[in-house]
Amino acid sequence: MTTPPPLRLLVLCASTRTGSLNRRLAQATADRLAAAGAEAHLADLDDYPVPLYRGDLEATEGVPDGARRLAADLARHDGVVIVSPEYNYSMPGALKNLLDWVSRIKPWPTKGVDGLLMSASTGAVGGHRGLIALRVPLEGNGMRLHPTMFTLAEAGDAFDADGRLADPAQRDRLGLLLKDFLTTVEAAVHYRERFGSP
Amino acid sequence: MTTPPPLRLLVLCASTRTGSLNRRLAQATADRLAAAGAEAHLADLDDYPVPLYRGDLEATEGVPDGARRLAADLARHDGVVIVSPEYNYSMPGALKNLLDWVSRIKPWPTKGVDGLLMSASTGAVGGHRGLIALRVPLEGNGMRLHPTMFTLAEAGDAFDADGRLADPAQRDRLGLLLKDFLTTVEAAVHYRERFGSP
Amino acid sequence: MTTPPPLRLLVLCASTRTGSLNRRLAQATADRLAAAGAEAHLADLDDYPVPLYRGDLEATEGVPDGARRLAADLARHDGVVIVSPEYNYSMPGALKNLLDWVSRIKPWPTKGVDGLLMSASTGAVGGHRGLIALRVPLEGNGMRLHPTMFTLAEAGDAFDADGRLADPAQRDRLGLLLKDFLTTVEAAVHYRERFGSP
Amino acid sequence: MTTPPPLRLLVLCASTRTGSLNRRLAQATADRLAAAGAEAHLADLDDYPVPLYRGDLEATEGVPDGARRLAADLARHDGVVIVSPEYNYSMPGALKNLLDWVSRIKPWPTKGVDGLLMSASTGAVGGHRGLIALRVPLEGNGMRLHPTMFTLAEAGDAFDADGRLADPAQRDRLGLLLKDFLTTVEAAVHYRERFGSP
Repeated sequence: MTTPPPLRLLVLCASTRTGSLNRRLAQATADRLAAAGAEAHLADLDDYPVPLYRGDLEATEGVPDGARRLAADLARHDGVVIVSPEYNYSMPGALKNLLDWVSRIKPWPTKGVDGLLMSASTGAVGGHRGLIALRVPLEGNGMRLHPTMFTLAEAGDAFDADGRLADPAQRDRLGLLLKDFLTTVEAAVHYRERFGSP
Repeated sequence: MTTPPPLRLLVLCASTRTGSLNRRLAQATADRLAAAGAEAHLADLDDYPVPLYRGDLEATEGVPDGARRLAADLARHDGVVIVSPEYNYSMPGALKNLLDWVSRIKPWPTKGVDGLLMSASTGAVGGHRGLIALRVPLEGNGMRLHPTMFTLAEAGDAFDADGRLADPAQRDRLGLLLKDFLTTVEAAVHYRERFGSP
Repeated sequence: MTTPPPLRLLVLCASTRTGSLNRRLAQATADRLAAAGAEAHLADLDDYPVPLYRGDLEATEGVPDGARRLAADLARHDGVVIVSPEYNYSMPGALKNLLDWVSRIKPWPTKGVDGLLMSASTGAVGGHRGLIALRVPLEGNGMRLHPTMFTLAEAGDAFDADGRLADPAQRDRLGLLLKDFLTTVEAAVHYRERFGSP
Repeated sequence: MTTPPPLRLLVLCASTRTGSLNRRLAQATADRLAAAGAEAHLADLDDYPVPLYRGDLEATEGVPDGARRLAADLARHDGVVIVSPEYNYSMPGALKNLLDWVSRIKPWPTKGVDGLLMSASTGAVGGHRGLIALRVPLEGNGMRLHPTMFTLAEAGDAFDADGRLADPAQRDRLGLLLKDFLTTVEAAVHYRERFGSP
């Protein structure tokens, strides 16, 4: 009897800022996924460079490489964790712009992909409103989003020197959520292997 | 080798009006699920009578029987289809009120339940905005909602004398979505049986 | 030259619970409006009793008195402040149910009414997500909602023995917002008197 | 007695595509505003070129000229009409990205600005869901959005050879809404002139 291959997770951070709290949360998540036996690959918007969407540009140049690369990365992983800041009570325009390009590829690269949403912020709300807005286009394009989301408020003080969440209660909350999400991903992989694509 | 028992689906209609288009859609859905080999049980808000939520009432009387009955029905089914009209660009207050009561039961009866949302309307929009609003509390309380939703616009002319969708393209769209949803439900059941609760 | 009559504001609290933080916020708001020279009338859902909305009930009994009373109160005031808790990341079902009934009166009693939304909660988020959801049906039915909203997080410790906000910074924030809202209401009244209904 | 100067309206189209239905709707709106005695200036995203928002870019280069130009245009007009397509059930990422940049200017250039939202689409829904999502960041940053929105479904056949809405009922609907919006804008201007900035 053989051990099943590890689950492969893409951890996509929607912030590229140096020292970004969302990047730290993405890194802590990737570390935690690795500790749980999964393969986690960290990426951010710089890995998928695209121009601002314009219909005329698409007509002449087609879908840009950056969007195709994200489509390929979604296809070669078993699930995705999106870690995104909240901008103006909604999702970052830059992230939505990337999703707008990706949605031009058919069938939707997001369709049937298991996803989990996270956000960190220095404020008290933790980015929850941005994630609520982000769910709409992702689910509209077929992503199967985990119902529970992870939002980290007052994130400026949340990480220790090793990049872990300093508060054990927060660590447990993250660990339990990732475990729950991995179970969902594993169930989908398991079923797909036995019965074909859901 | 034994045949697995049929999947059990609750089809909850959030309209109680006589001749309601959402009831017809719920019935057509239940029929279709039965034809696909599942056990579908049709229910509506009258099966779960509750008063308007009041904190003081909960403090003195506890959670009403109607909410407990819905919690029990969710527990004894493998998934739920909620068919709801759109009221004023959002979900019906009466449905949200029932969910407010149900959310007072811990752990949340909606947690980990696979769900699918549907809406019918006489207008051109088909109730999609109401369903977008409805996703927020359901997912917030842990329901795993299927990303794609079924909205039926101009529903006044949509059903034939047998209560089926008259348009073959609509029938196919409904059939494919239910098949996709049943696969998700089956994957969850399958995994749960082998590895325990996700 | 005569002094214009004071502005008349309805302060509607969507919680009826004894000791409710939202009632305290509604009271503090009414006091503040009175101090600013306006007439503020405090009301809550108990002042507008309605059953759960049912199409069949409306067909036989018409719109209930409670909904007609709110319509009349909206008509006889110059603006409304709605103070509502957040239930399950959205608006309370009981409040939405009242609005569903009110929306059956034509023209919409909410149409053209200047409104301001507020929320208090014991958590860190302050009810902002519930208010975002509440804007959709209110604006959909024509209410002119002030863009800025007042959310009070950690509200359990927010009030002093006189029912005022204990923190001077919070008091200033509330005072400035109400002044801004009153200016909007006054501009509308002023214009209406000179040029007729907008 | 002097005639007041005409109201100045910015009509901002969030699509730049050649032959875009939203551009046609923006043009029809500008024409209609001009016929009503207002000065309407048509603009689109190409008038406000900005890169994708990046915190590091802002730190080194500051807010780009394109965002400052929109801020200046908002300041020199009495109100704004935003005509935006719906992308993936939400607002276009490119529009949100521009708003993200504009929000970095303080005080918010959107604060206190009277706005009206519109959308055209070839589908049956008319872009309403995109506008619902767009309200959140605009109102969050202080824009006073007209509650009613104009959505044009099946827009491919909606315009005549002169660029007007072909259907008289649609023309009336647009005309009434613009009249209502202009009244709101005029009331704000009127009040501001007499009593200072609201």
